Parts: sequence; C-alpha cells; structure tokens
Amino acid sequence: MADLVLTTFDWVPDRVRGLVRDLRVRWALEEAGLSYRVESAPFQDRGAGHFAHQPFGQVPWLTDGDLSIFESGAILLHVGELSGGKLLPADRRGRAEAVEWLFAALNSVEMASLPWALFKFWGDDGEGAGAKGIEGFLMTSRLPHLEPVLAGREWLAGRFSVAAIAMKNELRLVDRFGGLADFPQCAAYVARATARPAFAKAHADQLAHFAAAD
Amino acid sequence: MADLVLTTFDWVPDRVRGLVRDLRVRWALEEAGLSYRVESAPFQDRGAGHFAHQPFGQVPWLTDGDLSIFESGAILLHVGELSGGKLLPADRRGRAEAVEWLFAALNSVEMASLPWALFKFWGDDGEGAGAKGIEGFLMTSRLPHLEPVLAGREWLAGRFSVAAIAMKNELRLVDRFGGLADFPQCAAYVARATARPAFAKAHADQLAHFAAAD
Repeated sequence: MADLVLTTFDWVPDRVRGLVRDLRVRWALEEAGLSYRVESAPFQDRGAGHFAHQPFGQVPWLTDGDLSIFESGAILLHVGELSGGKLLPADRRGRAEAVEWLFAALNSVEMASLPWALFKFWGDDGEGAGAKGIEGFLMTSRLPHLEPVLAGREWLAGRFSVAAIAMKNELRLVDRFGGLADFPQCAAYVARATARPAFAKAHADQLAHFAAAD
Repeated sequence: MADLVLTTFDWVPDRVRGLVRDLRVRWALEEAGLSYRVESAPFQDRGAGHFAHQPFGQVPWLTDGDLSIFESGAILLHVGELSGGKLLPADRRGRAEAVEWLFAALNSVEMASLPWALFKFWGDDGEGAGAKGIEGFLMTSRLPHLEPVLAGREWLAGRFSVAAIAMKNELRLVDRFGGLADFPQCAAYVARATARPAFAKAHADQLAHFAAAD
C-alpha cells in the first residue's frame, strides 16, 4: 500500500485546537488501523502549492500515492474504502446507509450547525432575523429529528462507520456552545464517540502537533 | 434494472419552486439518460412513512429496488454509479476529483452559501455580527477561491459530473440573491450549466409538478 500522508496546518490559534478537521481523518485512520504520517503546511502565507492541494486554502488534505484528496467528507469516504469494511460496510445496503448519513452530517446538519456555532463564536447577540432563523433551523428542524434516530441505535447506519465520525464532529461542535441541553440522545452519542480510544488518540495527537509549534 | 422512483413534495409555496432539491436529482437522471418516475409525499402532514425514508422530513429520496436513499449528495453519487461513466468517471483519479468536488459543493461552499441565502430570504438587515460574518465568509473565503478554479476549466473535476450539478445549485442560489456580481467566472458557470437541455427539462418538470397541485 502506498504511503498515506495527512497534511494539516503547522500552527493554529488556541481556540480552534481540537476542532481542526484533520482530527476526523486522524480518527478514521486510527479506527481503520492504517499507518500514516502527518505533514504541515504554513498557517500563515498559504502559497500556490497549498491551493493546488486544497482550493479554499483550508486543511486537511490526504495523499495516497498519486492521489491528493481534499474535503474531509471525500477523505473519509476514501479511508472507508481502504478500511476493509471497518468504516464502510461492503454490502450494498450497509454502504448506502453509511454514505447517506455521511452526507447528512456534512450537509443537512452542518448547514445549520456550522453557522449556529459561528454565531456563538463571533459573539452575535442573537437578536437579528438571521440569528433567530438559524437558531430555529438547528433547534427545530435538525436536532429533534436526530433524537429518535439516535435513540434507536448505537451508531448511525447501524454500526460504527465514517458516518458516525462525521456526525460526531457536528454534534460536538454544537455541544461545545451548549446547544445539546435539550437533546439527551445527541449528547449521549457525543459521549459514546468521545470514549473511543481512537478518538482520544487522534485528539491528543492533534493537540500535541499544534503545541509543538508554539 | 430496477425502477428508479424519485419522491418529492406534492406541493410547495411559489417562492421555492425551482429550488426544491429533487431538481438536482431530476437533472442528473436526465443527463444520465436513466428512466425514472416521480412520486409525491404530502407537504402538509408529513407522517411516519415520510420520516422512515427521510429522517429530517425533507425531500427528495430515491428508491432503487430495495434501496431507499436520502440526502441529495448520496443520491447524486448513486445516480453517478448508475450512469455508466457519464456523471462519475470510472478512472481512479477522475472519480476522486468528482467526489471531492461534490463534497466541496455540499460542505465547504454550502456552509457559507446556504446561511447567506437564508438571511436574504428572511430579510435580515445584515447589521448583526453573525450576518456580517456570514457575508464575509462567503465573499472572501469561498467565492474568490472558486473564481480561478472555474476560469481554468469548463466543469469542475475536468468534465461534466455530479460535482458540476451540485456546485451549480449552490452558485445559482447565491446568484438568485445577487451575490455573484463580483464573480464573473462563477456567474458564467451558472449560465453554462443553465443552458444544458437536461437542466431545462428538469427545471420545467419540477415547475409543472408543483403547478399540477395548485
């Protein structure tokens, strides 16, 4: 197998450490038991070489031999394919479920969770029509529908998969700003996922990576 | 091949006609030359049967024999697999590019474009910290990076694919609220995609479907 190389920033501000999106890829690679190494791109001065790998100037990207893949969803799907069924079921129905829930995390949920979290982060007072709309969108059109789904199963898609990893990151972001208080199943899901040794290792590795640059 | 059945709402308010997400699936099916039929679920009174297919109570979903798939990204990927290479290249590198740009549309771009468009839709005055942040996020961290990419190629991922369809829908939404004025390559891309006969048919079919319910 070709070398897998995950690239993230060399340094990020304290407040986003533990949230940078290389975390989900590290976690998936740890769950899959795949060997990989981590390289750094400058956080300051993102050059043409960076944009050639990641057109928005973000991280992460993953190289696998001659392939260079950006977008954490696409990377998770790729790691799923390499995982021998551990993170992406081989059967047609199981695979379809994992893929739809992967998109659900990164699209249906994130279109509400990310702006909601950014508003908290930016200190918006929540009084504008947009802020109220986003609050309602997340709290009435998204999280209440996840509750019964997560009540009925330990992991999305019926077993641990790339979808479980992606959704955990969405819900963890909401939880960080206190948004899961009325959603005990979502909160329990975050706790279950956080308890996995592969998550703990990936999280510690990200923190150590950025600490080394201080 | 099993019957493909696309389900959308029976009716939606005028202002969202032409934007409901069955459009992108109709478009992909038309591009792929696959036969399908369209069924309706009630817009009012979404029952347990609806949530069993689409856990957020949204549309569309696609059934393919014993599979029922929700999330338009997952459906596009599935239609891509059925398209015989027309919407998802068979070679490893081409496929990886189409998949990463599909996620780029539905995650990196939509996390900015959707809240930005919702703010316009909700009539937010744009004065709050959140509204200003979302405006800056879309206008400085996303669209300017798409410009050079779209200047260099007719379609994302080097050829027409599910990624081109997904990104077109994001940019069309921004365009609808006047957000592409400073981004000529993005605007030209929307025009190129709109000119495709399969898009025109899908769009007319969606309008006719909802008009029939009035």
